Amino acid sequence: MSILVLGTVALDTIKTPYGFKKKVLGGSAAHFSMSARLFTGVDLVAAVGEDFPPDYVDFLRSKKINISSLIIEKGRTFHWQGEYSGDLNTAFTKKTELGVLSSFKPRVTPAQRKSKYLFLANVDPDIQKSLLELIHSPRLVAVDSMNYWIEHKRRALLKLLKRVDIYVANDQEARVLSGEVNLIKAARALRRLGPKMVLIKKGEHGVLFYGGNMKACLPAYPASRVIDPTGAGDTFAGGFMGYLAGKGRFSLAAIKKALACGTIAASFNIEGFGLEKTAVLTLKDFKDRLREFKGYVIF
Amino acid sequence: MSILVLGTVALDTIKTPYGFKKKVLGGSAAHFSMSARLFTGVDLVAAVGEDFPPDYVDFLRSKKINISSLIIEKGRTFHWQGEYSGDLNTAFTKKTELGVLSSFKPRVTPAQRKSKYLFLANVDPDIQKSLLELIHSPRLVAVDSMNYWIEHKRRALLKLLKRVDIYVANDQEARVLSGEVNLIKAARALRRLGPKMVLIKKGEHGVLFYGGNMKACLPAYPASRVIDPTGAGDTFAGGFMGYLAGKGRFSLAAIKKALACGTIAASFNIEGFGLEKTAVLTLKDFKDRLREFKGYVIF
Repeated sequence: MSILVLGTVALDTIKTPYGFKKKVLGGSAAHFSMSARLFTGVDLVAAVGEDFPPDYVDFLRSKKINISSLIIEKGRTFHWQGEYSGDLNTAFTKKTELGVLSSFKPRVTPAQRKSKYLFLANVDPDIQKSLLELIHSPRLVAVDSMNYWIEHKRRALLKLLKRVDIYVANDQEARVLSGEVNLIKAARALRRLGPKMVLIKKGEHGVLFYGGNMKACLPAYPASRVIDPTGAGDTFAGGFMGYLAGKGRFSLAAIKKALACGTIAASFNIEGFGLEKTAVLTLKDFKDRLREFKGYVIF
Repeated sequence: MSILVLGTVALDTIKTPYGFKKKVLGGSAAHFSMSARLFTGVDLVAAVGEDFPPDYVDFLRSKKINISSLIIEKGRTFHWQGEYSGDLNTAFTKKTELGVLSSFKPRVTPAQRKSKYLFLANVDPDIQKSLLELIHSPRLVAVDSMNYWIEHKRRALLKLLKRVDIYVANDQEARVLSGEVNLIKAARALRRLGPKMVLIKKGEHGVLFYGGNMKACLPAYPASRVIDPTGAGDTFAGGFMGYLAGKGRFSLAAIKKALACGTIAASFNIEGFGLEKTAVLTLKDFKDRLREFKGYVIF
C-alpha cells in the first residue's frame, strides 16, 4: 500500500569538498519520496513558495510521486544552506530561511485521509500532529525530529511520541532526548516515551533497531565515494518505510529487510549531490547492491 | 592448529565510571589468548618482570595457555594506567611504565618455531620483526600496531607490513597510517603497503574487512553493559585469529564467521574489568550470544 509523507520540500545550497550546488531540490519529504517510490506509491505533503521552480514540480511528478498535497503558498520556499568538510559526517548550517514553512498547515485529499502508512519527517511537532489528526486510522506511523525541536518544543514532541509506532532518530538526537549515552539504554528509554519501536541512525556506522524483543543492527554500506550526505537519513527512512508499506507486514524478518533497503537507498544518496543519484536509481541497480551488501554482512 | 601470539602481558590499573581496579592482569597477548583459547591452542610469547604475581602465572596456565615462552626478566612488569569517562570510547593514558618491555627479545621453543598461525600484537615493530624471523614458514601472519609506532617507528612498521598477511588496525590508526579519511580508501591504501588483508576495528561501530575481492563488514554486538573496554580490540583479534587457526581455512565464509567470533568475544570482554568475563567464558555462552547476534544482523 502507498505511504504518505509529511515533511519539507526545500531548496538546498550545498558545499562539500566535491563541489558547490545552489538551490537544488531537497528537503526531508523529497529525499524520503525518492527512495520510498522504489517500493510503493508515495503521497507527498508539503508546502513550497511561489519561487519554487516549475521544473522541480514536473520532476517530482515524473517520478510518480503524488503531489496533490504539495501546496504552493504565498512566500518563499524553505531554503537551507550548509557545508561539509573533512570526513563529511557533520553538516555546518550556514543559513536557514523558513519561508512558507513558518505558517504551514498541511492539507490532504479525502483519499489520503485513509492512508495506512505515515511518515512524519522532520518539521515542527505541531505540524506533524496536525497532519496525524487528519488521518482516519493509520496502521503504522513513524516520526522523525531534530535537536532543534527536542530543545525548543520538547513537550509537543513528547506528546506526539505517545501516538506513534516508530521513533526515528540519529544517535545524537537519541542521546539528547533520552539522556542516555549508551545507545541501547537510549533506545530503551525512548521506547518508554511511547513508540513501540525505535530506530537509531548512526550515519556511516549503520543503524540500530530496538522494539523490545525485536532487535536488529546493520552496518552502513561500505561507501568510498561520498559526495554529499544531505538527505541520507531521510533517504534511509524512505527505503525502510517504503519497503514496510509495500509489504504490509511488520515481522522482525520484514523489519530487517527494510533496514537493509534503507541502508542501500542511503548508500546511493550520498554518491551525488541532492537527489542526483536516487532520482535515477532503478530497482535493478538497487537489488544488485543489496545482494552485494548481503554478501558483506551475512556470515 | 594452535596460534602463537606475541604481545604484552601487563599489569593494568583501570578507572571507569564503574570502578577502579589496581594492577589487574592485562596486556595485548593476555586479552588475545583469553578469546583465542575458545577455538584453538594458544602459545603466548611475552615478558614480565620479577614483580609479576605467581597467581597470574598459575591463572594463565589454568586457562590452558602455553606459557613456555612467557619469560620472567629482571625488572618490572609493563604497567599501564588508564581512565575512561563518558561513553567509555576513549582511554586516557595516565601512566605507562615499560619495565622489562624496553629490552624484550622474544624467544620461542623449537616446537613453536614451526607455528603456522601468528599474531603480532601491539609492541615495538622491531620486536615483532625479531619474532617473525624465528618462525620457519607461517601460513598466516597478522600484525597489530598503534599510533605511537606509526609515528615513531614508521619505517620499521612499513617494512614489517610487507611481510604479513593481515594488518589489524583501529579506525584512527588506519586513517593516520594511510592518510585517507574514508575507511574504504584507507583500507585500499593500506593494502598497497603489503598485507593482502586489512581489518579495521571501529570499536562500538563494528568492523570492516578488506581483502581486495573479499569484503565484509559487521556492526558491533549491541551492548548495554559496558564496564571496561580495555583489551576489547585484542579480544576481538583473538576470536578472529583463533577461529581461523582452528579452521585452517581462509575463505570469505570463514573470514566472515571469524569476524563474528571476534565481535562476540569482544562483547564479553567489555562487560567486566580486565579479563573478568572472558576468563570464565564458556563455548556454550559464546555460541548462545553468537546465535542471538546472527538474529540481529541476518536479513
